[in-house]
Amino acid sequence: MKEINTDILIVGAGYAGIAAAKKLHAAQQDFMVIEARDRIGGRTLTEDLESGVTVDMGAKWVGPTQHLVWEWIKETHTETYDTYDQGKNLLKFKNKITSYTGTIPKIDPISLIDLGITISKMNKLSAQISLTEPWNHPKAKEFDAMTLATWMEKHIWTAKAKHLFEIGIQTVFAAEASEISLLFALFYFKSGDNMDTLISIKNGAQQSILKGGTQGLIKKIAASFLDKIHLESPLLRLSQQANGIIAETKMLKINARKCILTIPPVLISTIEFEPPLPQQKAQLYQRMPMGAAMKVYLIYPTPFWREMGFSGQIVSDEYPLKVTFDVGHTDSELGVLLVFVEGNDARNFIDLEEGTRRKMILERVEKIFGHQASMPMQYIDKCWTEEVYSRGCYTGLMGPNTLTQFGHQIRAPFKHIHFAGTETADKWCGYLDGAISSGYRAASEVLKETL
Amino acid sequence: MKEINTDILIVGAGYAGIAAAKKLHAAQQDFMVIEARDRIGGRTLTEDLESGVTVDMGAKWVGPTQHLVWEWIKETHTETYDTYDQGKNLLKFKNKITSYTGTIPKIDPISLIDLGITISKMNKLSAQISLTEPWNHPKAKEFDAMTLATWMEKHIWTAKAKHLFEIGIQTVFAAEASEISLLFALFYFKSGDNMDTLISIKNGAQQSILKGGTQGLIKKIAASFLDKIHLESPLLRLSQQANGIIAETKMLKINARKCILTIPPVLISTIEFEPPLPQQKAQLYQRMPMGAAMKVYLIYPTPFWREMGFSGQIVSDEYPLKVTFDVGHTDSELGVLLVFVEGNDARNFIDLEEGTRRKMILERVEKIFGHQASMPMQYIDKCWTEEVYSRGCYTGLMGPNTLTQFGHQIRAPFKHIHFAGTETADKWCGYLDGAISSGYRAASEVLKETL
Repeated sequence: MKEINTDILIVGAGYAGIAAAKKLHAAQQDFMVIEARDRIGGRTLTEDLESGVTVDMGAKWVGPTQHLVWEWIKETHTETYDTYDQGKNLLKFKNKITSYTGTIPKIDPISLIDLGITISKMNKLSAQISLTEPWNHPKAKEFDAMTLATWMEKHIWTAKAKHLFEIGIQTVFAAEASEISLLFALFYFKSGDNMDTLISIKNGAQQSILKGGTQGLIKKIAASFLDKIHLESPLLRLSQQANGIIAETKMLKINARKCILTIPPVLISTIEFEPPLPQQKAQLYQRMPMGAAMKVYLIYPTPFWREMGFSGQIVSDEYPLKVTFDVGHTDSELGVLLVFVEGNDARNFIDLEEGTRRKMILERVEKIFGHQASMPMQYIDKCWTEEVYSRGCYTGLMGPNTLTQFGHQIRAPFKHIHFAGTETADKWCGYLDGAISSGYRAASEVLKETL
Repeated sequence: MKEINTDILIVGAGYAGIAAAKKLHAAQQDFMVIEARDRIGGRTLTEDLESGVTVDMGAKWVGPTQHLVWEWIKETHTETYDTYDQGKNLLKFKNKITSYTGTIPKIDPISLIDLGITISKMNKLSAQISLTEPWNHPKAKEFDAMTLATWMEKHIWTAKAKHLFEIGIQTVFAAEASEISLLFALFYFKSGDNMDTLISIKNGAQQSILKGGTQGLIKKIAASFLDKIHLESPLLRLSQQANGIIAETKMLKINARKCILTIPPVLISTIEFEPPLPQQKAQLYQRMPMGAAMKVYLIYPTPFWREMGFSGQIVSDEYPLKVTFDVGHTDSELGVLLVFVEGNDARNFIDLEEGTRRKMILERVEKIFGHQASMPMQYIDKCWTEEVYSRGCYTGLMGPNTLTQFGHQIRAPFKHIHFAGTETADKWCGYLDGAISSGYRAASEVLKETL
């Protein structure tokens, strides 16, 4: 076992860990990063396909108010392009296909009003929530004793509006409305401005795509301190003494003064802490399960749907396909359709063989776009619940009685250990921007204690 | 690292693991048990106090329909005695103390009717639930999309009945009604016959106490194969080959043909599996957090409350004291009061210093039983959320969308690995009896594959 001394140890080389490293590097601090995987990027993973198309198998988009990601984009001179958002969107609902433009599908007027009212109610409620102390809302206990599904049951009157709202929730959380507490949902919406922002392309969280992908961006940011990053080094044990910590991996024993832990909450439970985590923190990390989403890319010789007047955006009620986007590069002639399978559907779908998955997705797309859709040049998908160093995606969720009882623990340091990761962010919690801000915050905490 | 070969490896020496071992031992199989702690018993822990009183700091009671525990009791000639259940019970509610007899407190007639109706509604609903496939109930999805708190909000009309029902729930689950799904609660009640059984002393789950404690019982059962149990051996890694498994602890490398994993769900997440757990199983174990309870024993020179005509049973709405029992041995002159602090109260209470905890509990008891109550010979308490090899108590809970989506995974073997533990039981899930039956079941699975 190799023994290493450093001043600050960062655990995890995703956006949070690299953001912390960036800040410490700029402050000329002595630090190192250990990462479980054989790559950096965490829940970002960019692949260059043979066709020349670059796809993000993990986190993909950047919205206009995600300022910290934009700073990195500018700093690295990364080019971006807009998600294709012209032409008609399609809604497949109970075997009927209708087309519409904008975010809200063309449905019967009553359902449409119902859906609009529901989203506006949600936005009004979430606007009242404090991002730093969501548990202090006068109705926090009440909102945190019910699931979002219960709220929907009570407030949405038409079946169609409910179904569409549900698809929106599944797409935003990679989970079911029944898995998360109303309070957590309200906090999460507020964290990303509001529900409209989270479900929108234009001016929303799905607006911009990075050339070279989101993993490409983090690689550029980390380039100047790559020598500080130790890959394939999952943390096994973290013990604390009066003046610092000892971290153990299979091959390394690292002595440091401070530690910044940036891994997902569910993985914090897997580390052996000495002394053990404070009991409320330990109970919190038992209560932040990861969502489940499957991303499927279909690569076509052309984005043929564009010529048919369609945007490539589909909202569907038929398992497994929920939502699709045209994410083709502006400088490529190829068509790139991104299909999302979400929540329980994803969990069930991932258990199927890849051949079956491919067949099912192509059948669904063919029903909507016709024969051409059944013959992509390539099918590629990614199951994040099978990644042992993520255990799901997009983020750690909170069911009822979590935010009110344990929320104050999420950013609380434990002696020499500081906590980052997108789950600890107030702004853009669950997104890349939140990961970066959390890394900056944790680095600041450590720097403050250093000075 | 010492290498050991065995046919069947059992992980965990709690009631489930020892039950599996007992069965394999009787069938003259080659097996061994590894246990993380320096003792056997898991969530049972019996302490002999200096005063001569024996207390169960973990699981304590045995109910009349817990037949498997009774078999062990008879086999080991263990004496039992009844929980003291004579005299008047006390209800402290909004600074008013009233006395009553039986399980249901003396409250105003409308609240009383409301409470009775609620419990009867609950029993009616839970009677419809299948213990082996609770997810097959026609309304399973609906019941699993809401918290038990939501159901209570809808069905209980008076504040007093709601408050009392809530205390009942906290006492049964060591958790809040907002933490668990309605479907899980219904399953759990049915699993222990019905809600009445779970909250009752006479003919209920709190009827009998073992002389020598529940850990004493398991020690007797394990006595004939103690040499097969390796203590202080937390499992770190479990890899599977075509013909068996390799288990690694810090000191041991164990080759076995089959493995029975009996540890709590939340601890399964901490093991490194190769190949990784099936993704739905992995997601399930992210979703079964442990409850939180604190057990406090107050030892007095005499059970003075008996002379005052009281049973020692208190139900109180004042933090932190929720429920008390007189658990004094029939052959002792000492008074033994057992105080429960449950759910969120327990989580908050455990964070206080022991001196403060003692002071608060004694103040509460004094208010009810008078000055004598403030001067016990001994105060002793136990925080199960601080036990890293349990991470809470009594059991792994299920929030919404868990039982319906992941329930079928709980007993599903994974290649050569079989799963036991009270959380996997259909009958008496969460209790000692369920732990035993789960161990027997897993042993049967392994034996069937052996023959």
